Amino acid sequence: MYKKPYINQLIHCGCGIMNQRPDLEPFFNPSSIAIVGASPKEGSLGRAILDNLLLRYKGIIYPINPKYKNELGLTWYSSISELPESPELVIIAVRADFVPRILEEAGETGCKAAIIISGGFAESGERGQQLQEEAYRIAQKYGIRVVGPNCIGVYNALTGVDTFFLPQERMRRPPRGPIAIISQSGAFLASIMDWAALEGIGIAKAVNFGNKMDVDEVDMLEYFGWDDDIRVILMYIEGLKPGRGRDFIEIAKRVTARKPVILLKGGKTSRGASAAASHTAALAGDYNVLKGALKQARILEADEVLDLFDMGKALANLRYSRGRRVAIVTNAGGPGVIMVDNLIKYKLEVPELSKELQERLKSMFPPRVAVRNPVDLTGDANNEAYEKALTTIVESGEADIIVVIALMQPPVLTVELGDLIADIAWKHHGIPFIVVTMGSEIAKKLEERVEGRGIPVYNFPERAARAVYAVAHCSKCG
Amino acid sequence: MYKKPYINQLIHCGCGIMNQRPDLEPFFNPSSIAIVGASPKEGSLGRAILDNLLLRYKGIIYPINPKYKNELGLTWYSSISELPESPELVIIAVRADFVPRILEEAGETGCKAAIIISGGFAESGERGQQLQEEAYRIAQKYGIRVVGPNCIGVYNALTGVDTFFLPQERMRRPPRGPIAIISQSGAFLASIMDWAALEGIGIAKAVNFGNKMDVDEVDMLEYFGWDDDIRVILMYIEGLKPGRGRDFIEIAKRVTARKPVILLKGGKTSRGASAAASHTAALAGDYNVLKGALKQARILEADEVLDLFDMGKALANLRYSRGRRVAIVTNAGGPGVIMVDNLIKYKLEVPELSKELQERLKSMFPPRVAVRNPVDLTGDANNEAYEKALTTIVESGEADIIVVIALMQPPVLTVELGDLIADIAWKHHGIPFIVVTMGSEIAKKLEERVEGRGIPVYNFPERAARAVYAVAHCSKCG
Repeated sequence: MYKKPYINQLIHCGCGIMNQRPDLEPFFNPSSIAIVGASPKEGSLGRAILDNLLLRYKGIIYPINPKYKNELGLTWYSSISELPESPELVIIAVRADFVPRILEEAGETGCKAAIIISGGFAESGERGQQLQEEAYRIAQKYGIRVVGPNCIGVYNALTGVDTFFLPQERMRRPPRGPIAIISQSGAFLASIMDWAALEGIGIAKAVNFGNKMDVDEVDMLEYFGWDDDIRVILMYIEGLKPGRGRDFIEIAKRVTARKPVILLKGGKTSRGASAAASHTAALAGDYNVLKGALKQARILEADEVLDLFDMGKALANLRYSRGRRVAIVTNAGGPGVIMVDNLIKYKLEVPELSKELQERLKSMFPPRVAVRNPVDLTGDANNEAYEKALTTIVESGEADIIVVIALMQPPVLTVELGDLIADIAWKHHGIPFIVVTMGSEIAKKLEERVEGRGIPVYNFPERAARAVYAVAHCSKCG
Repeated sequence: MYKKPYINQLIHCGCGIMNQRPDLEPFFNPSSIAIVGASPKEGSLGRAILDNLLLRYKGIIYPINPKYKNELGLTWYSSISELPESPELVIIAVRADFVPRILEEAGETGCKAAIIISGGFAESGERGQQLQEEAYRIAQKYGIRVVGPNCIGVYNALTGVDTFFLPQERMRRPPRGPIAIISQSGAFLASIMDWAALEGIGIAKAVNFGNKMDVDEVDMLEYFGWDDDIRVILMYIEGLKPGRGRDFIEIAKRVTARKPVILLKGGKTSRGASAAASHTAALAGDYNVLKGALKQARILEADEVLDLFDMGKALANLRYSRGRRVAIVTNAGGPGVIMVDNLIKYKLEVPELSKELQERLKSMFPPRVAVRNPVDLTGDANNEAYEKALTTIVESGEADIIVVIALMQPPVLTVELGDLIADIAWKHHGIPFIVVTMGSEIAKKLEERVEGRGIPVYNFPERAARAVYAVAHCSKCG
């Protein structure tokens, strides 16, 4: 009944961990999907879900709504029990009070996976809480795994499963890529996906589980950990489900042995936590306890939303570093200084280059060039100066990570500098390269060249410093 | 001899401070400029300076280079002494060894302001140090104020004075606006100007003084403080000139009584400071001492480059707040929670709304809407919901600053929301509004609408939190 996952599915060997396929495959890779609450009405939620699936999902779609028979060229059904087969996944987008009955029906046909988009459950008072408990009992009875309720659900760039009920023009879908996102906030997830599309950041899969009556961040972390389409996992969480702390640490430890996990915590302050409690009916948990757990599990913590992506972009592309020694080559003093400050803040090393290496560099350049580290080629530096400096430093073995700061405003530099940096980086691919450039058109041109070759580029030194930190941190990961 | 400054020139009254016009006017507003080292050669520095001045500067330009007589339709001169008048400003862009002689000549004609673009002075060893000392002695003898050497000089959007020797296609010039920038790093200044152009951030004036043999950040701060074209001053500094600490505090105190000053320090760490020392031959100074001075002088400190602009943009537009109580209206839980965390981090208050106000809000909205603060209208909120919530909160008097988080992905919101927010903000202009929206096209559309009405918009909650902090901080400024 299971369809094979879309791409190469290596099971991690050796330590015997994570070789069990989790039972969440039907959410991301189902052969058929029933949409209860589908609608042909323009602007409706049921129509948005249907449209998005029709656009890219290749499996069978069963729109369910007793009001319609033949709309949009599809056969409509009045209930799940009428379907010619048990759907592998059912998406539920109807009023909360109808949900228990629909789950019952789904269970009777043998369906094992449901995404409840509808709100009106635990987040909205006592009656909703009762409904959620009732729905949970039914799901348990039939062994149905549930994502939701009160969620935007699941997004898989590879299979086209997309329950985010937002039209394409409101939420652009990002390019395919190796990043997965787990978000406790649905609207937040939609907006960062839209932003990622703008920035060209590649996303493989994403999930929001709302009230997480069943599937939660721990389940998803395990599933994404197992999934070889994914190289980096980004998480936004406000709090774990009660009693899931130990599971979280255990699972996270295994996952971070395979790939980096970066987490942003919402509700770090007590005021923030109380705001979190009022919107997902979840306890935000003690931040200090969580911090300890993150450290134990080798999860990287992001301080800000943007940090998730700055670190994620680096880790999606770069090999891990052999150590923490960073060499900086720049054509501008100020950003070099700012870079050093920020690297030191993250406990990275910016050692003075050896006397021997300094002498070698001195012999290549005019006296105005600073050679200690940062190597400041000054504003007159051309492409060739970068090539000489980078090659010499990389071959010296004195740096584990290279930061190239290339401000493109001086006309002596050309965008071919991008190819040149990429060539050196690829030739010495044991040493991660991170590039900083600032400005408008000319900076964007360099960025495209360099990122096109898989080397991450940042527009501000501080953002690049976070990326260096992430790479160095994960050099101890699996 | 002085030309009148370009626009409205209010002298601050009352306390008798800053009513002396500083003698730096010839740098920003000269009636004539001589360019020593001007060149008709495409791609040369002397040509770039000439081109940029020809583009927008309305005063008299004297290109000086003994090699040329009539080029580019201009009369060229072989030396300053040949000019029909004493130029009000001389820009020097020739080899370092020629600079003392040129200063001597400028002094003899009575010129009182020189920008020395050329490098090869204190930053490049002993011989350069001697040259710089010699140049300084000559400048002192004739009473010439000097910006530089080893700098990119001066930019004035209002008069078209622009000594940044970068062609327009490499460094886009930002729109005119109320922000001034003082930067110890030249290349850094060029690249952030280019970036500001991309972002549409309005810049009035900017300066980089390189080795600051004479004019330094303290002089510039005083001058910009006096200048009524400028509403906010951004500074990047690595260290003050020896002995200028007390002056800096005294001047800064007077300036921050008139307008906000935001400062980013380079060389906070000892490794960063040593990198700074090697690129501008300046001591980076003790960061802890500086921190004390900043506090005393009520200067806002930026942690990152981007913070300078995030805070600057808010302060360029917003009235100061009456207090620190922030109310948040959102359609997304997660960003609301993140917003609260970050506001608390900056010691702002996010108080629960009064019971009475909560009741009033409850009566307006369905039960799923959270009313304590953040007011979470949830993803179903339309423009009207925002209007009702914002009006009710503003009129209650319970908030000193309003943060509106409007994720535009749900199709129920339209970009007219921007006008609606702006209308309410303008009607209640004693209460600053700050808006957060995230995403791609649709977010940009809202941003344009709202910023077009003078209300700052941010793409991430953390960036908006810094803006709120800046506004609250400066509510105690003059």
